[in-house]
Amino acid sequence: MSLLVVGSVALDSIFTPFGSTADALGGSAVHFAVAASLLHPVRVVGVVGDDYPVHELERLAARGIDWSGVERVRGESFRWKGKYSYDLQSRETLETRLGVFADFRPKLPAGAHGARIVFLGNIDPVLQLSVLDQVASPLFVACDTMNYWIQSKRDDLLRLLARVDMLMVNDGEARELSGDWNIHRAGRWILERGPKRVVIKQGEYGALLLEPGRSFHIPAFPLEEVFDPTGAGDAFAGGFMGYLARANAVDTDHMRRAMVYGATMGSYSVSGFAVRGFEGVSTADVEERVRQFVDLTHVPLAEPAA
Amino acid sequence: MSLLVVGSVALDSIFTPFGSTADALGGSAVHFAVAASLLHPVRVVGVVGDDYPVHELERLAARGIDWSGVERVRGESFRWKGKYSYDLQSRETLETRLGVFADFRPKLPAGAHGARIVFLGNIDPVLQLSVLDQVASPLFVACDTMNYWIQSKRDDLLRLLARVDMLMVNDGEARELSGDWNIHRAGRWILERGPKRVVIKQGEYGALLLEPGRSFHIPAFPLEEVFDPTGAGDAFAGGFMGYLARANAVDTDHMRRAMVYGATMGSYSVSGFAVRGFEGVSTADVEERVRQFVDLTHVPLAEPAA
Repeated sequence: MSLLVVGSVALDSIFTPFGSTADALGGSAVHFAVAASLLHPVRVVGVVGDDYPVHELERLAARGIDWSGVERVRGESFRWKGKYSYDLQSRETLETRLGVFADFRPKLPAGAHGARIVFLGNIDPVLQLSVLDQVASPLFVACDTMNYWIQSKRDDLLRLLARVDMLMVNDGEARELSGDWNIHRAGRWILERGPKRVVIKQGEYGALLLEPGRSFHIPAFPLEEVFDPTGAGDAFAGGFMGYLARANAVDTDHMRRAMVYGATMGSYSVSGFAVRGFEGVSTADVEERVRQFVDLTHVPLAEPAA
Repeated sequence: MSLLVVGSVALDSIFTPFGSTADALGGSAVHFAVAASLLHPVRVVGVVGDDYPVHELERLAARGIDWSGVERVRGESFRWKGKYSYDLQSRETLETRLGVFADFRPKLPAGAHGARIVFLGNIDPVLQLSVLDQVASPLFVACDTMNYWIQSKRDDLLRLLARVDMLMVNDGEARELSGDWNIHRAGRWILERGPKRVVIKQGEYGALLLEPGRSFHIPAFPLEEVFDPTGAGDAFAGGFMGYLARANAVDTDHMRRAMVYGATMGSYSVSGFAVRGFEGVSTADVEERVRQFVDLTHVPLAEPAA
């Protein structure tokens, strides 16, 4: 089932206690696509400037990523520079240069209008809505957002929520959007705004899948070494949506399995700088880690109560 | 299988954004026993002053709690006063008065020396060791500790670790004890000091069960209302150890089920001030919540990979 992501294609400069990287491949659409492509072909819509190392994107095309929907425009590419705390629990943005991303108006290329599984990465909700208007009959649409849009474009974001199947955000965003610090009440608040499901990402604590009257939790994969959390949430989304596209199903059982694929991709993402955590990772590796994941949460059937 | 807990029997004054309580039943042994007694009879060893509302303890004896090992001594009972932040994520100790607890030297009463499942609540590790010396042939011993003992009695604590089967602490304590902020490395550090297993409690994020080469995670029960986190960790321990005592088994499968009972008891504990979250809770209620818990983490079997 055709899979589409719209989001940023950026160059990231990242400082962590374990090293740093400059102008590395980044942006929500890139992290999403690298993860998703391990499960299903994926088409990307975005924009880059004429300074972007396009050959690096093209090298990734062999994985099943269709970059033909990434416009190339005169000017500077979107750049982000950030620094993490010693325990990677918080980060500070040192610099954001939007460049050509400031004038990004997503336009779906021929063939993309029929996309069935659609992820609207973290961009202006007005643009996310414009993408929805260009998709003919999606089966399942999920979107991300961030504090900036929650504060500056709240009404547009609420209009978007009424039209998507799922919101996928981190816990801080869910709390800010709902105005409620209890994560389960926050999730219910979001569900009452339209989406049938909400995924709340909790970093090293895993992620929640909330539906009316039912919850599911998946922990993060146990890792003794974490190098760079940048893009882990988008890799999670890529694993989640890529699995749904491959499975060709969007019921609750498949959503739960999609959570495991999402968390698996998140674990690869944090294991290297930028997208390097995925270097050398095969689909067979993913399936093996998914099996390990299932053991991590498996409660053996109990004997009858005494 | 006989179950024994040694710990504090206190009077707590608690302030939260949702209300407050003064001189309520508290202390690690009380929270543990109230939870454990829903699954198995439990014997408590501790000390109280002559100001303690012993009739309130005696009222709880009907649940299957044997308080005969709680010494009554002239003087003031242990009192703790604390205040929680608006989101219950942090707390400040306003006052600690040790009273008769300062001179507590646990002495097991006749009949307690044969205890098979033993929980050493958070007290001086020297006293925890002295309890171990009084137990003839325990099948499974778990202990708790806190930052105060990690800092002031480190050597005694390490001697204790070499003699117990499990350490059960919160994530901050595991980090402080090991000197490592990565919780999986911290867990491995602890395992290398003696215990065959370690449980790391993570509050609203659930709890980890770590064994050499294998991990298990249980989330917290999804609650839209949380009133008072005091004692939740001890209630978790009570559910965990009470289940093992009832099941009469200490293999990994039973440990995983014990994690579910622990988390279930934690969820009742936070639902009311002091031990009131357990009012009206029956063993049948516990079993029903355990079943809901299993659904919360259940990953439906996947179809073969495409």
